[in-house]
Amino acid sequence: MGAHAHVHPPDPVPHSSLVSASHPGLPLNDGKLHVLLAATGSVATIKVPLIVEKLLRIYEPSRISIQIIVTEPAERFLPAADKPLPASIHVWRDSDEWENWSTRSDPIVHIELRRWAHLLLVAPLSANTLAKIANGLCDNLLTSVIRAWNPAVPILLAPAMNTYMYTNPLTKRHLQIIQDEMDWITVLKPVEKVLACGDIGMGGMREWSDIVEVVVSKFPPPLYPKKSDVVDSQGVVQDKPRHNTPDHAGTGHIRFQDPESE
Amino acid sequence: MGAHAHVHPPDPVPHSSLVSASHPGLPLNDGKLHVLLAATGSVATIKVPLIVEKLLRIYEPSRISIQIIVTEPAERFLPAADKPLPASIHVWRDSDEWENWSTRSDPIVHIELRRWAHLLLVAPLSANTLAKIANGLCDNLLTSVIRAWNPAVPILLAPAMNTYMYTNPLTKRHLQIIQDEMDWITVLKPVEKVLACGDIGMGGMREWSDIVEVVVSKFPPPLYPKKSDVVDSQGVVQDKPRHNTPDHAGTGHIRFQDPESE
Amino acid sequence: MGAHAHVHPPDPVPHSSLVSASHPGLPLNDGKLHVLLAATGSVATIKVPLIVEKLLRIYEPSRISIQIIVTEPAERFLPAADKPLPASIHVWRDSDEWENWSTRSDPIVHIELRRWAHLLLVAPLSANTLAKIANGLCDNLLTSVIRAWNPAVPILLAPAMNTYMYTNPLTKRHLQIIQDEMDWITVLKPVEKVLACGDIGMGGMREWSDIVEVVVSKFPPPLYPKKSDVVDSQGVVQDKPRHNTPDHAGTGHIRFQDPESE
Ligand SMILES: Cc1cc2nc3c(=O)[nH]c(=O)nc-3n(C[C@H](O)[C@H](O)[C@H](O)COP(=O)(O)O)c2cc1C
Ligand SMILES: Cc1cc2nc3c(=O)[nH]c(=O)nc-3n(C[C@H](O)[C@H](O)[C@H](O)COP(=O)(O)O)c2cc1C
Ligand SMILES: Cc1cc2nc3c(=O)[nH]c(=O)nc-3n(C[C@H](O)[C@H](O)[C@H](O)COP(=O)(O)O)c2cc1C
Repeated sequence: MGAHAHVHPPDPVPHSSLVSASHPGLPLNDGKLHVLLAATGSVATIKVPLIVEKLLRIYEPSRISIQIIVTEPAERFLPAADKPLPASIHVWRDSDEWENWSTRSDPIVHIELRRWAHLLLVAPLSANTLAKIANGLCDNLLTSVIRAWNPAVPILLAPAMNTYMYTNPLTKRHLQIIQDEMDWITVLKPVEKVLACGDIGMGGMREWSDIVEVVVSKFPPPLYPKKSDVVDSQGVVQDKPRHNTPDHAGTGHIRFQDPESE
Repeated sequence: MGAHAHVHPPDPVPHSSLVSASHPGLPLNDGKLHVLLAATGSVATIKVPLIVEKLLRIYEPSRISIQIIVTEPAERFLPAADKPLPASIHVWRDSDEWENWSTRSDPIVHIELRRWAHLLLVAPLSANTLAKIANGLCDNLLTSVIRAWNPAVPILLAPAMNTYMYTNPLTKRHLQIIQDEMDWITVLKPVEKVLACGDIGMGGMREWSDIVEVVVSKFPPPLYPKKSDVVDSQGVVQDKPRHNTPDHAGTGHIRFQDPESE
Repeated sequence: MGAHAHVHPPDPVPHSSLVSASHPGLPLNDGKLHVLLAATGSVATIKVPLIVEKLLRIYEPSRISIQIIVTEPAERFLPAADKPLPASIHVWRDSDEWENWSTRSDPIVHIELRRWAHLLLVAPLSANTLAKIANGLCDNLLTSVIRAWNPAVPILLAPAMNTYMYTNPLTKRHLQIIQDEMDWITVLKPVEKVLACGDIGMGGMREWSDIVEVVVSKFPPPLYPKKSDVVDSQGVVQDKPRHNTPDHAGTGHIRFQDPESE
């Protein structure tokens, strides 16, 4: 804090000034819960289809819409999953940024995905993407979404890494920066388990079903479809609704969700 | 500051020890103003041809020489510009680093460009390249030039980003590191405008014509061609002339140029 | 320090919990000294074959095993070396991570290399990889090995860079983070010399023969083959032996090895 006390903070964004460009595949006001689910280069990416399937079962497709972002390394793990992703779910890749843009009036994918989302869930979060988030790097689609994030909308991170990666002092540094600077982010603390590499120790991704529980408690299914959205959704450009449930709203503090304390 | 008080500073570089390898396309002592203009992955890269054209008009080709560096994402925006770059202007890409080097005696592009330049102007500067500069990463041509920069030569940065990218707390952190550590860098504070993504807010690149004005006031055209350069330029290896105008020399402090205060 | 006093440190790893997956090319208990030698994108990579050859001569192949990791830029410099690498030495590239993994039970290359090594020597270390290490980024094989490192095993870094890269204030920042946070890392301070780019100044890699000396004094050749290893190596899964010589063990402090003071 003391270190950057002398620079004036960038001006706050007046929310009313946001207008909507609306990507065709990303309808804003359909009353559904919009979950942006991202996977990074950890073996735990093989759990992503399970998370998707369970969310679809709990909310039913009429009340939830899911978009997936993969980093390039994450994509290599998807074929090793027990089941494929449902065919209806769109997977966004880095190349989509550029294939969707050619002139000034075209929508910008990382901006449209951020506008659309009521929640970003990164599960699993690799050590590398954690470092990029804490350092503000944004050299791919996922980190561009995160760097351009609207602080009024929550982000959940579920780290998954080798024990030594997790106990490396830089992990603590990165989590501290997130805690100090980005109170819209909640970190779902890893658990101790036998990891893919054979080691036993801290760093395993929280159980995928627990992660789904956290989403469900943040966004209770009975609240969907959002009535106000549906009423207003006749092509009228409007702000993205705040989907803060009591659980999320108000405190303004990052919570390191500890599995033991739940 | 306190955090790194215990490591002795690296020894200062004796300037007289610099010798010149001189890349054929980069004559050092032609008396002209040498502007190294870099573009990064922002839509505002479409303004680069306008900046080039105006500089050429103000100085006339006899008094200015311009080299351009693009990051890989920046290059994708150039075709969307209203006008192409003048054919005479060389565009340097990451691949040039390797195509110009095969044995120990070959010139190293990022070193030669830095030696040649009297000014580096990065316009537009993306959030990602800002993060790389503040974190000392140098995984492409532009950031290698910046990491190997001679502190006696000025750098101008013109950030251009989505409002939320700009108001993200990491932007402030990065600007603070630059202010604290790199007093040869001046940041041209962005302006509020309707951005390419449709949002209105802070983060837009300063007007391209204002950016040209800053260059012109730093390097007044009547000073070129530099007499001393031309006299000494008969193949004699010498230090790069200091092109500090009164505006730049002396203070040793970064200035956050604020458009409102001009 | 004060900045991250509030986050509880990640739990320490119980060493006894480590089990061994053992990559076929990486026998753990052969009694030999296991040197993991990494090269990054500096011209000084042309010295790597000299380092390898001298280590093989001093220890003899019966007492040492060397594995090499190259970053993508490092690989471009190898053809410029005076002599090629011995054919017996395996060179690991980023692509090996993915070619060796397709299902959950496959070994993970960056973990196996770390388990196998008694020492990681990065010579030369580029400014870019230094920045990645200090910032915890791990987007390639080498930095994944380093991010997942076991703190009980030593790392030697031999920076090699242009003088202005070295005297850039970010170099000091990065070295300070390493000194503060990673006491298993020793930095072999660069020397003043005429660099590949023609500049004279600090930043040149320590003489390759001096670097070999440091390894030899850390791991005296008469100690190999390790008797205990050979006795226990009948397929029994066991912890990697600690190879700390008196020189390394105990102090727990990073040493900036200064060539003048040797
Ligand atoms: C087989 C394999 C498994 C890996 N598992 C993990 C992991 O669980 N957690 C992690 O942080 N990195 C893991 N890595 C390393 C990352 O994939 C690597 O750091 C990559 O650059 C991350 O890129 P991303 O953050 O852009 O997804 C693994 C790599 C391989 C090859
Ligand atoms: C259509 C489009 C427009 C973008 N506009 C910006 C922008 O104005 N500012 C910015 O910081 N990033 C912008 N980005 C994201 C960057 O291009 C991305 O972070 C990239 O990795 C930057 O790489 P560079 O810093 O190496 O140029 C845009 C991306 C796309 C696809
Ligand atoms: C011919 C040439 C020589 C270079 N020499 C060095 C050097 O000695 N030290 C350094 O830090 N970077 C040097 N660079 C720049 C690095 O190669 C560049 O920053 C690269 O991205 C480093 O990648 P790595 O850290 O993944 O190996 C050189 C580049 C070129 C083209």
